[in-house]
Amino acid sequence: VFERCGFVPIETPAMENLSTLTGKYGEEGDQLIFKILNNGDFLEKADVEALAKKDSKALSFSISKKALRYDLTVPFARFVVMNQNELTFPFKRYQMQPVWRGDRPGRGRYQEFWQCDADIIGSDGLLNEVELVLIFDEALSAMGLTDFTIVLNNRKILAGMAEVFGISDRLTDFTVALDKLDKIGVDGVLQELNNRGFDSDSTGRIDAFLSKMTSVSSADETLSFVRDMLSESEIGLLGVQETEFIVNKVAPLGMKGKLKLDLTLARGLNYYTGAIFEVKARGVAIGSICGGGRYDDLTGVFGLPGMSGVGISFGADRIYDVLLELNLFPEFLNNAPDVVFANFGPEEAARCLPLVRQMRMMGLRTELYPDSAKMKKQFKYADDRKAKLMVIGGPDEWAKNVLTVKNMASGEQQEVPISKLIETVLTMIGH
Amino acid sequence: VFERCGFVPIETPAMENLSTLTGKYGEEGDQLIFKILNNGDFLEKADVEALAKKDSKALSFSISKKALRYDLTVPFARFVVMNQNELTFPFKRYQMQPVWRGDRPGRGRYQEFWQCDADIIGSDGLLNEVELVLIFDEALSAMGLTDFTIVLNNRKILAGMAEVFGISDRLTDFTVALDKLDKIGVDGVLQELNNRGFDSDSTGRIDAFLSKMTSVSSADETLSFVRDMLSESEIGLLGVQETEFIVNKVAPLGMKGKLKLDLTLARGLNYYTGAIFEVKARGVAIGSICGGGRYDDLTGVFGLPGMSGVGISFGADRIYDVLLELNLFPEFLNNAPDVVFANFGPEEAARCLPLVRQMRMMGLRTELYPDSAKMKKQFKYADDRKAKLMVIGGPDEWAKNVLTVKNMASGEQQEVPISKLIETVLTMIGH
Repeated sequence: VFERCGFVPIETPAMENLSTLTGKYGEEGDQLIFKILNNGDFLEKADVEALAKKDSKALSFSISKKALRYDLTVPFARFVVMNQNELTFPFKRYQMQPVWRGDRPGRGRYQEFWQCDADIIGSDGLLNEVELVLIFDEALSAMGLTDFTIVLNNRKILAGMAEVFGISDRLTDFTVALDKLDKIGVDGVLQELNNRGFDSDSTGRIDAFLSKMTSVSSADETLSFVRDMLSESEIGLLGVQETEFIVNKVAPLGMKGKLKLDLTLARGLNYYTGAIFEVKARGVAIGSICGGGRYDDLTGVFGLPGMSGVGISFGADRIYDVLLELNLFPEFLNNAPDVVFANFGPEEAARCLPLVRQMRMMGLRTELYPDSAKMKKQFKYADDRKAKLMVIGGPDEWAKNVLTVKNMASGEQQEVPISKLIETVLTMIGH
Repeated sequence: VFERCGFVPIETPAMENLSTLTGKYGEEGDQLIFKILNNGDFLEKADVEALAKKDSKALSFSISKKALRYDLTVPFARFVVMNQNELTFPFKRYQMQPVWRGDRPGRGRYQEFWQCDADIIGSDGLLNEVELVLIFDEALSAMGLTDFTIVLNNRKILAGMAEVFGISDRLTDFTVALDKLDKIGVDGVLQELNNRGFDSDSTGRIDAFLSKMTSVSSADETLSFVRDMLSESEIGLLGVQETEFIVNKVAPLGMKGKLKLDLTLARGLNYYTGAIFEVKARGVAIGSICGGGRYDDLTGVFGLPGMSGVGISFGADRIYDVLLELNLFPEFLNNAPDVVFANFGPEEAARCLPLVRQMRMMGLRTELYPDSAKMKKQFKYADDRKAKLMVIGGPDEWAKNVLTVKNMASGEQQEVPISKLIETVLTMIGH
């Protein structure tokens, strides 16, 4: 799907400079980055003060220069800056690689998991967001997953809300709490804001907003509700306008029921500045299976300002879990051999080898049992491996220039001249 | 190739327990393992004595529990032991994943590189070795690389030599020095043995062996030479017999010129016990591109003794380098778009979207330029991306229900009714 949509593949190293990764994923994210211990005598250059104070965090930067990538977006931004003179912009790349996070493992939460990302950098047209929404649809549908919701919001709407609530200086704290609405409810969110030191004026306004919000449901209603609410905020209205564009362009393409606005969606990553996305599989409680958003200046910190980018990420492991739970895995994912040759001893096995090679060249999965074990054991092996056919030939058979082919499912077997073996096997397998 | 030969895929995590990896790769190998710093307050549980002494090596084990895999064989052995009750033996698996080594980077030497491994575990038949040699041949040939040498030796032969030379207690030191013959010559090897404290009796015998060895060339000559030399060593003769079996079974299968015996081949990994392999591309100075060997008890250290295994590994990055140097990369590795739609503005772009989607569904790589930039810039983009066709349509064209299709190579263009667009595009692309 990525390639059909014009994205080109790249891969980046598992390790990035630790300094490249820190500060991009929020405070909690920084703590989850896996750091690589410097090789050799790392204590030689260790921060003496941190050592004396036993300050692990401070020490870590002096004994660890590299870290495992935490997502694919930051390495991508670093890659774009390093290769800016060779790339054609807008640059559309896809990347499918594992990432690592030192999270406590749990359902849908892994320390190593695969992300499959598609990003466009060097273009601020909202058509990119529209295309990415279509890619969610096309790729998930191709995997047989059709019952999902693409949740949409915009960081500018969240900034507008913070403006209107008079808490612009606390935007991150506000969005972090708001993002938890699903899990902890309205009271929980207000409690958390309270704990974080928000005054009752602002929590009162947020309370009123959350109550009203629950009364609107369709995208149109939500848009009109938030447009009214943010009528005094320039950035807020820009966010509404962007969201409207995406909704209006996507709706006629047969995705009406799949796209949903959610004004509380915030996403934890520091670098998002515009549209943000999340995809949830309906009927499976596993959190979001995809995410993404617009980042206006991620390459700026690496020395290339003014390069807006937008991207999405498929969480391959969670999608795997969902497909498994919904029983959507295709039957044909099957590595069973087509043919297993029995082994009657070194002499006979050596005579099988050219036949084995020939069958492989014809594309048949073919094995020669590697030891001259008891026939019972060899049959059990072929059975356990769900082999379709077994080819059997002892000294007597080789002397007569014949071999026996056995259909493992039906138990039927026939003796065939060696010269007709491959033809017979192909027919029996239905090639 | 692996699948046709009956191997099933597995993947293992990037991180293993540090204790799983240490002691498997020789002393030098241990130092090259990348260790992961424990998350959180790692100093809390740090070895106080090592800290006081500033002993980096001793400290590392108390602040790092995990490490990045160094090869695929040890993780595979760990996997087999953990899953022994679910697996069918002999178990044939392939695995293609990156590994990490803290080596100084250089030509053909990377800190992250991909290995593509095939192993059979739970079978000690030498037919496995024969099959693996055939896989070297089949896989490399499939990549267009035909000019290579498969170098063969046997750890038992090396052990036999050590016996005959009276240096059985120094087997590792002996093989490490011998393995460098290619690089440092006979004098260099003798010098190194001297430095390592070998007495003149043993170095004299080794000198005599090395001089005689250079006078034999064919596999048959080498076998007869080494059989004579090891006539007093039981283990040595067993190694000769194993090697003879492999050579005799492989030779009739059209690989005579490709297989070479080299009695100095040792390979650095501690766990090999029988046949050892290396593959070198002729005419490219980059070291070995594949390796492998028989290990009789690698699973023993993880609690499952008596499981002999044998495997091979393709070094994907070096093979890439060789293919690049020999200009063997196929032309068709090309991500150019089939069609780029020009963008005349939000209105026209929105009307293009359904056509874009339709073309993608037909398997065409199709892009819609994401911004309504100047036409010159959009044409340059399509050119730089080596697009085959561009579809162009401004307000006037849409009003007439036509679009212009331009062949980017020839410059030819034609106006077509929108209803005929896809048909025309398919014809022009030659689908």
